[in-house]
Amino acid sequence: MHIGMVGLGRMGANMVRRLMRGGHQAVAFDRSPDAVAALVKDGADGAISFADLARQLDTPRVVWLMVPAGVVDATIADLLPHLSPNDTIVDGGNSYYVDDIRRAKELAAAGVHYVDVGVSGGVFGLERGYCQMIGGESDIVAHLEPIFATLAPPTEAAAPTPGRAHRVGTADRGYLHCGNVGAGHFVKMVHNGIEYGMMAAYAEGLGILRHANIGRADQEHDAETTPLGNPQHYQYDFALDEITELWRRGSVITSWLLDLTAEALLQSPDLSAYAGRVSDSGEGRWTIKAAIDEAVPVPVLTAALFSRFASRGEADYSNRVLSAMRAGFGGHSEKK
Amino acid sequence: MHIGMVGLGRMGANMVRRLMRGGHQAVAFDRSPDAVAALVKDGADGAISFADLARQLDTPRVVWLMVPAGVVDATIADLLPHLSPNDTIVDGGNSYYVDDIRRAKELAAAGVHYVDVGVSGGVFGLERGYCQMIGGESDIVAHLEPIFATLAPPTEAAAPTPGRAHRVGTADRGYLHCGNVGAGHFVKMVHNGIEYGMMAAYAEGLGILRHANIGRADQEHDAETTPLGNPQHYQYDFALDEITELWRRGSVITSWLLDLTAEALLQSPDLSAYAGRVSDSGEGRWTIKAAIDEAVPVPVLTAALFSRFASRGEADYSNRVLSAMRAGFGGHSEKK
Amino acid sequence: MHIGMVGLGRMGANMVRRLMRGGHQAVAFDRSPDAVAALVKDGADGAISFADLARQLDTPRVVWLMVPAGVVDATIADLLPHLSPNDTIVDGGNSYYVDDIRRAKELAAAGVHYVDVGVSGGVFGLERGYCQMIGGESDIVAHLEPIFATLAPPTEAAAPTPGRAHRVGTADRGYLHCGNVGAGHFVKMVHNGIEYGMMAAYAEGLGILRHANIGRADQEHDAETTPLGNPQHYQYDFALDEITELWRRGSVITSWLLDLTAEALLQSPDLSAYAGRVSDSGEGRWTIKAAIDEAVPVPVLTAALFSRFASRGEADYSNRVLSAMRAGFGGHSEKK
Amino acid sequence: MHIGMVGLGRMGANMVRRLMRGGHQAVAFDRSPDAVAALVKDGADGAISFADLARQLDTPRVVWLMVPAGVVDATIADLLPHLSPNDTIVDGGNSYYVDDIRRAKELAAAGVHYVDVGVSGGVFGLERGYCQMIGGESDIVAHLEPIFATLAPPTEAAAPTPGRAHRVGTADRGYLHCGNVGAGHFVKMVHNGIEYGMMAAYAEGLGILRHANIGRADQEHDAETTPLGNPQHYQYDFALDEITELWRRGSVITSWLLDLTAEALLQSPDLSAYAGRVSDSGEGRWTIKAAIDEAVPVPVLTAALFSRFASRGEADYSNRVLSAMRAGFGGHSEKK
Repeated sequence: MHIGMVGLGRMGANMVRRLMRGGHQAVAFDRSPDAVAALVKDGADGAISFADLARQLDTPRVVWLMVPAGVVDATIADLLPHLSPNDTIVDGGNSYYVDDIRRAKELAAAGVHYVDVGVSGGVFGLERGYCQMIGGESDIVAHLEPIFATLAPPTEAAAPTPGRAHRVGTADRGYLHCGNVGAGHFVKMVHNGIEYGMMAAYAEGLGILRHANIGRADQEHDAETTPLGNPQHYQYDFALDEITELWRRGSVITSWLLDLTAEALLQSPDLSAYAGRVSDSGEGRWTIKAAIDEAVPVPVLTAALFSRFASRGEADYSNRVLSAMRAGFGGHSEKK
Repeated sequence: MHIGMVGLGRMGANMVRRLMRGGHQAVAFDRSPDAVAALVKDGADGAISFADLARQLDTPRVVWLMVPAGVVDATIADLLPHLSPNDTIVDGGNSYYVDDIRRAKELAAAGVHYVDVGVSGGVFGLERGYCQMIGGESDIVAHLEPIFATLAPPTEAAAPTPGRAHRVGTADRGYLHCGNVGAGHFVKMVHNGIEYGMMAAYAEGLGILRHANIGRADQEHDAETTPLGNPQHYQYDFALDEITELWRRGSVITSWLLDLTAEALLQSPDLSAYAGRVSDSGEGRWTIKAAIDEAVPVPVLTAALFSRFASRGEADYSNRVLSAMRAGFGGHSEKK
Repeated sequence: MHIGMVGLGRMGANMVRRLMRGGHQAVAFDRSPDAVAALVKDGADGAISFADLARQLDTPRVVWLMVPAGVVDATIADLLPHLSPNDTIVDGGNSYYVDDIRRAKELAAAGVHYVDVGVSGGVFGLERGYCQMIGGESDIVAHLEPIFATLAPPTEAAAPTPGRAHRVGTADRGYLHCGNVGAGHFVKMVHNGIEYGMMAAYAEGLGILRHANIGRADQEHDAETTPLGNPQHYQYDFALDEITELWRRGSVITSWLLDLTAEALLQSPDLSAYAGRVSDSGEGRWTIKAAIDEAVPVPVLTAALFSRFASRGEADYSNRVLSAMRAGFGGHSEKK
Repeated sequence: MHIGMVGLGRMGANMVRRLMRGGHQAVAFDRSPDAVAALVKDGADGAISFADLARQLDTPRVVWLMVPAGVVDATIADLLPHLSPNDTIVDGGNSYYVDDIRRAKELAAAGVHYVDVGVSGGVFGLERGYCQMIGGESDIVAHLEPIFATLAPPTEAAAPTPGRAHRVGTADRGYLHCGNVGAGHFVKMVHNGIEYGMMAAYAEGLGILRHANIGRADQEHDAETTPLGNPQHYQYDFALDEITELWRRGSVITSWLLDLTAEALLQSPDLSAYAGRVSDSGEGRWTIKAAIDEAVPVPVLTAALFSRFASRGEADYSNRVLSAMRAGFGGHSEKK
C-alpha cells in the first residue's frame, strides 16, 4: 500500500523501514528535514510539508501519525486542511483513548476516518515486529490490514497456544482489531499498565537481593533506628547479573523484560549509570483512572506508578509533613 | 510506690516527674550522670550504677526500663545480677513483643517477673498523661496499678463513650491490662502501625493540595512526559496552614495528629526546615510482619511504611533497575 | 438571612434546623412532600416546586442545594428558569470540583453566581456544627458569611493552636474561603481522601488485633498453605472495645473517628451486623485522579479506596485470573 | 549419580523421571506406597522406609527432599538417624531460608551436609527442565553438579544474552550456586515474590479490560454510589482470549506467564470454573519480611500478596469496621 508517515523518531522511522521491506511505499514527513533525509536515503519518498505529503499520496490517503501524545491534536489540525473525505488518519502513538473518541467524532464531520493503533515493541520493532492493538471502523481497519500484517511480528515469534489451531483471526499474527474507536489505545494503555507492574516486580525483587548483605553493616542503636534482630540472616552478596541470567531458563518468571534486565545487569550490575529518576509517559496514569472509573482495584499497577512518581522527588512535600508531625508529637529529629 | 527508672531520655525523665507529682518515690538511673542530676534536682533519688539502684529500692523491686529497643537485652543482662526473686522488670520502651515473650521466659528462671508496657503520648505525656497498653501476669500487673494510674491521662481527657457508663475496667482511665506477656507491646505495635497510616493519610492529602497549582507550570512535550490534559483544573494556591486549622473543627478528620499538623504548618507552610527523610522505629515493621503471619491484608499500613523507606533513598537500586529496563526496551533516557 | 434549601435528606434537613436556630429564615424544598412537611413543622417555610421556592425567596436569591452529586446538574437545569441575574446557587453536596468549574461558567452566562461548599460533619452536624470548605467569587462568598458562620462549629470545638492568636481569618471558626470556584469541593475531596486513609488505618490495625489468636487454630500442612512458624506468638484474644476506648486518652491516634469506632465496638465487638461491603461515594476516586494528574504519589489513599472496591467483590475476575495461572503453571487447585 | 528422593508429589516424581532419563539412579520414597509404586514402574528403586532408603543408597548418601515446607523438619528428624557423617540432605522444596540456616547448623553437629535448592518450573519441569537456585558449601554443591545439570533446562531454552559469550559459569545452563546455605531458597523466595507481582499485574490489567463495558450498565443515583461521569468511554467488550494471544508476539509484556494466561483464557474467557480464592504458599510472605528487614520498599510485591489474602476473605473484619464507622459518622447503610 501507499502510506504517509508523520513523525520519524525512534518508532516512526523504523516502522517506515519495516513497511518498505514488506513492499509498501511510504511518504515520510517530520519537522526535522534530517530525519526525512535519512529515510529518503533508505528508499522512502520525502515530504517537506503536509501539503506536499498530501499531494504525493494516492487517494483515499492513509496518513499514520507517530508523534508525542501531547502534539497529536495540533498535528491533526495542521494536517486536516490538506486531506479529503474518505482519507484516513491513523494515530499510532500513545494517545489517550478518550482523545481518540473525541477526535473520531470531530474528523467524521470532515468525512475523514480515524483509526487508533497501540503499538508495542519499542526500539526492537524493526527486527522483532510491532504488536498492534487496533480500534476503529471495521471496514477501514480491514482496508489497512496489509499495513498491519507487514508491521506485525511473525506468527513463529511465539509457540502455538495449545488448543488454538481451529481459531481464525489475526491475534496470533501480531495485530488485532480490538473494537470501536479508542479500543486500540485502551488495550495498549492497559498493556503499558501491566508493563509498569511487571517492571516494578522485577525491580523490587532485585532490590531485595541487592540489600541481602545488610547484616554486615554496622548498626546504630538509637530511638530513630530499628534494630535488625537477625543480622546473621542477611549475609548474602548476590551476583544479580548471574541470577537474572539463571531465571531466563525454566523459571516461572521468564519474560522479554527479564531478558533485557539480564543484559543490562551483565553490562553493569551496579547500574551506576542511572540516577533512578523514572519517567512515566501517560498510559500508566490513564490505566489507573480507567480502573477507578470501573471500580476495579489495581493496587499493583498503582503502586508501580507511584514508585515512579516518588523516584522523581514528587513525594517530598508529603515526606516533610511526616517529619514535621514526628517532630511535633515525639520530638524526633530527622537523621542525616 | 517506690520505683526505679532506667533511661532518662525524652520519655523516661518526664515519666519520673509525673510519678513524683503523683506522690510516688523514684530512683533514677541513666548512663549519663547529667540526666540523673537533672532529675535529682527535681526530687528523685539518683543511682550511679545498677548495684546502687538495686540497693536503694524497696523489695520486691520494681525497675522500669525506658531505653531504646536495641539495648533492652543488654540492659537486662547487666541489671539482673542485682535483682532478687519476685522483683519485677517493666519494659516501657518500644520492644518487639516477640522479645517480651522470650525475656519473660528467661527471667522466670531467675524468679523475676516481666511486664511489658506500650506507652503512647510522646513528649506531651508529662502534661497529657501516658496511654499505657500492658501485658503480663495478672497479679503483677494489679500490683503495679498505682503506677499506671498516675502515669495515665485523666478520664476527662475524652468525652464519655455513649453507652459505656455501666462498664467497669480501666480503659477509660488510660491504661489497660491487654493480656499475657507481650500483649502490651503487641497493642502498642499496632497502635503505631495505625499511627503510620494516619500520618501518611494526612501527608498525602496535603501533598495533593500543595500541588494543586500545577496547571500553572509550563508543560514539556516529549515522549518522556505525560501531558496534563486539563491545566485549568489545577490553578489553586491553597493555604495549608488555614485549611488544617479549618479541619480541626467539625470535620470528620479531626484528631490530635491534625492539631499538631496545623501547628507545624502555622509555623512554616513550606516546611522547608525538613528534608523529608522519615525514620521508622520498628513498630511499623513489626505490625506488617504480624499481619503477614496472620494473613490479614494491610495495604494502607504497609504503604505508609514503604513511603518512609523510600523517603530515605531505599528504593534507589530498584529505581535504577527501572531506568535500565526503559533504556533497554524503549531507548528512553532519564530526564534530569 | 433568607435562604432556600433544596434536598432535605440526612444533611440538608439538619442544616435548615441549625440555620433556623441561628435566626435565619429558610424555604425548604424536596421531591418528598413528607420531608418538606417535617421541616415546616420545625418552623421552615415549605415550597412545593422550584417556582414556588423562587417566588418565596428574597432577591437576590440564595438557593443551597444538598442533593446527590449525580443529580446536581439536573436539579440546576430545573431550577435555573426560576432564578434571576445576581441570584446565587450554592452546591453543598459532594460534587466533583471539575463540575463546579464547568457549572460556574455555564451559570455565569445567565448572570447567576455559583458557590461550592464542601461540608463535613455528617449526621452529627446539627449539634457539632458543619465544617465548611468554600470556593467561589470573593464578594459572593463574603455576602453569604452569616450563613456559613451559623452552620459552622464553635471556635471552642477545638483548643486554640499555639501561636495562632494573632491570625485573622475564619479557619478557626469552622469555615474558610479556600479559593476560586471549585476550591471548596477540591479541599473537601482531599478531606475525604484523607478520611478514607484514616479509616483504613484503624480498620487494618483492628484486623490485626482481631486475628492475634491465630496461633490457636489448627494448622494444615499442604503445599497450598503457608505454615505459621511461630504459633506461640499469636495467642492473644484482644478486647477491641476496651482497646479502642483506651486509645481515646493520651495516645497519638486519638481522633473523632476513633471515638466513633470505640462506640461501635462497645455495641458489638464482632460487628456481626455488617457484611463488610463498603461503599465509596466519589471523593476518594477523584482524590486519586487529582493526585495522578499532579504526579503526587498517594499509595495510602489509593490502597484505602481499592480495599473498598475489593470489599464489594470488584476484584473477583482478577482473582480468577490468578487462580487460573496457578493451575496453569503449578497444577494448584483452589482451596475451599 | 545415585540419589534418594523423598516426596513424590507433583514436583518430586517428575524430577526423579528427568534424572533417570539423564542416566542417574534413584531410590524413591513417599508416605504413599502408590506414589512409590508408580515410580518403580518407571524404573526407580522404591523404598518402604527411611531405613530402607538409607540402606539402598551409595555412601556418602545424597537424599533430596521434595516435601511441603511445613513437614521438612519432621522429615529430617525421622531421616537423620539413618544417615551417616558426610551424607548430604538436599531440601528442594519451598523452605524458608532462615530454616535452612538453622538446619545446616543442626545437621553439621551430626556431620551431615545440607544444601538448599529453590526449584522453579512447576508441573512443566519434566519437559522444560527445572531452574535451580542453590545454596550451601561450595564443595558439596560442586559434588552434586551432575544432578543439577540433568534437572536443568537446556541452554537453548533462551536466546544467548548479547555480550555474555565470554562468561564462564552455570547460570545460562539453568542452575547456579548462589551463595552459602540459605542462598538458594533466598533467591527462590524473591523469585516467587516477583512471580506474585507479575501475576497480579496481568490479573489487574485483565480486570480493567473485562469491565470496560461498565458504561452500558444502568446507574444508580444515591449518596452511596459514585456517578460514572463518562459512560460513553466504557463501551468496550474485549475478547480477552484474543488480546492475551496478541500480546504474546512483539509486545513488551511477553512472558511464560502470559503464555499460560492466553491458554487458560482460550479455554474459558470467563474463568467461571474458578472462585477466585487464591492461595499463597509462603515465599511471598517471606519476601516481604526480608524486604522489611532490609528497609527496601516493595509496594508492588506486597500489594500482590495482600490481594491474595483479601481474595480469601481475610479482610472481612477490617471491612466491617469500615462499615461500622460509616454508619457512625454518616448514617450510611451498607448496600446489598
